[in-house]
Amino acid sequence: MDDVRMIEIKEDIMADNNQVAAGVRDRLCGQKTMLLNLMSSPGSGKTSLILKTIEALKNNLKIGVIEADIESKVDAEKVASQGIAAVQLRTGGLCHLDATMVTQGLDALAAQDFDLLILENVGNLVCPAEFDTGAHKNVMILSVPEGDDKPIKYPLMFSICDVLLVNKIDYLPLSDFDAAALRKRVLALNPKIKIMEISCKTGEGIRDWISWLTREIAAFRRG
Amino acid sequence: MDDVRMIEIKEDIMADNNQVAAGVRDRLCGQKTMLLNLMSSPGSGKTSLILKTIEALKNNLKIGVIEADIESKVDAEKVASQGIAAVQLRTGGLCHLDATMVTQGLDALAAQDFDLLILENVGNLVCPAEFDTGAHKNVMILSVPEGDDKPIKYPLMFSICDVLLVNKIDYLPLSDFDAAALRKRVLALNPKIKIMEISCKTGEGIRDWISWLTREIAAFRRG
Repeated sequence: MDDVRMIEIKEDIMADNNQVAAGVRDRLCGQKTMLLNLMSSPGSGKTSLILKTIEALKNNLKIGVIEADIESKVDAEKVASQGIAAVQLRTGGLCHLDATMVTQGLDALAAQDFDLLILENVGNLVCPAEFDTGAHKNVMILSVPEGDDKPIKYPLMFSICDVLLVNKIDYLPLSDFDAAALRKRVLALNPKIKIMEISCKTGEGIRDWISWLTREIAAFRRG
Repeated sequence: MDDVRMIEIKEDIMADNNQVAAGVRDRLCGQKTMLLNLMSSPGSGKTSLILKTIEALKNNLKIGVIEADIESKVDAEKVASQGIAAVQLRTGGLCHLDATMVTQGLDALAAQDFDLLILENVGNLVCPAEFDTGAHKNVMILSVPEGDDKPIKYPLMFSICDVLLVNKIDYLPLSDFDAAALRKRVLALNPKIKIMEISCKTGEGIRDWISWLTREIAAFRRG
C-alpha cells in the first residue's frame, strides 16, 4: 500500500467533510435546532439514553432522532414507537457518520422546527471521533463493564467530547471499575469535559443529564 | 465526496491486502505456526482471554502475541510480564489491523518456532472484520453487557469468525441478556460458528476454549 497516497486522500476527505459540517452547523443555528452527536462502543447504551431523554423532554421540546446503523433499523423503530420523528441512515458497512450523511438525515426529517436533534452514531470508539458531523455538542457514553482504562486506549474520543456519561453504574457491585482512576485519565486528556455517572436501567443520574441538556439547549437558543 | 473514487480506492486497498494476507498465511504454514486473530468491541475481554490462554498453555506450547493499540502499550506490557514474546503495533489512530501491519509484527518477533501467535486486534466491532490479517482462525468476543442484539447491528463480524466467545457470563444475574436469542441470531448469519460461554474473571468455560484451541493447533500442525 502506498502510504503517501493514503494520507493525501484522507486529508481531502477530512477537508471536504469539515466544510460540509460547518454548513450543517450554520443551517441548524439558523433554525434554533441544537444537534447532539452521541457516540460509544457497541452496547454501551446509546439507544437507552435516547429513550430516557425523550421520556423526560418530549412534552416540553420538539425532538428528532437520526439513527445510524450499519445494517438494521431496530433503533429507529424503538424511537418512532415513542411518537418521535426518526430517520435511519444505513451506513452499509461504513464505520462512522460524516457530515454528508447527516445532511441526508436532515433532508429526510424535512421539518425545521426541532429544538433538539440527536444523532446516534455507529457503535465504535475509534472512527466516529475523527469525523465532524456538524453537531453543536459531542457526547459519549462509556459503560462500566468496558473498564476504566479506555481513555488510555482510545484517547481521541475522550478528547473531543463535551460530556462523558458513565453508564451502567448498576454493574459497579460486580466490577473492579475504578471511577476515580477513570476521571483522572479523562481529565488529563480533556480538562473541560463534564463527567456524569448514570444508569439507564435504574434511572440513577438521569436527572443530572437532563438538567445539563436543558440548560445547554436554553443557552443555545439565546445564541 | 466522490463515491466512485472512494469505492475504487477501497477495492485497490482490499485487493492489495488480500494478497499480503495470503502471503502471511503461507509463510506461517511453512513454519507450523498457527495465527489467531482476536477481535471484539473495546473492553470485552481480549487481553484477559489472552492472559488466561497463556496461563493454560505456556508450559506446552511456544506462544507469541502481537498487540494492536491505537496509542498505548499497556496490553503488550501485561503479556510480556508473563514471560511471553510480545510486540506492540501502534496503529496511530487507524481503526483496524491489515496484513501489512501483521507482517511488521512478525518481522519484529523475529523467531520462527512459535506454535501459536495471537493477534489482539483494535477494539472495534466494525472495521477489523473487513480486513484479512492472514490469520488461520478468526475469533471474536462478545461480552454479556453489550447485549444480545449485536449480531443484528454488526453482522459482518459475526459472519466471518470461526468462534464466538460470550464473555463476562458472571454478569448474567444482573442482566436481561438472552443467550438463546443471541445463539439464534448468530447461527442465522453463520451456521458453522462455534459458540462458547466463558468468564475470564471466574474461569468458567475457559477449559472448553482451551480444549478447542489445543485440538485446532494439533490439526493445523498435521497440515
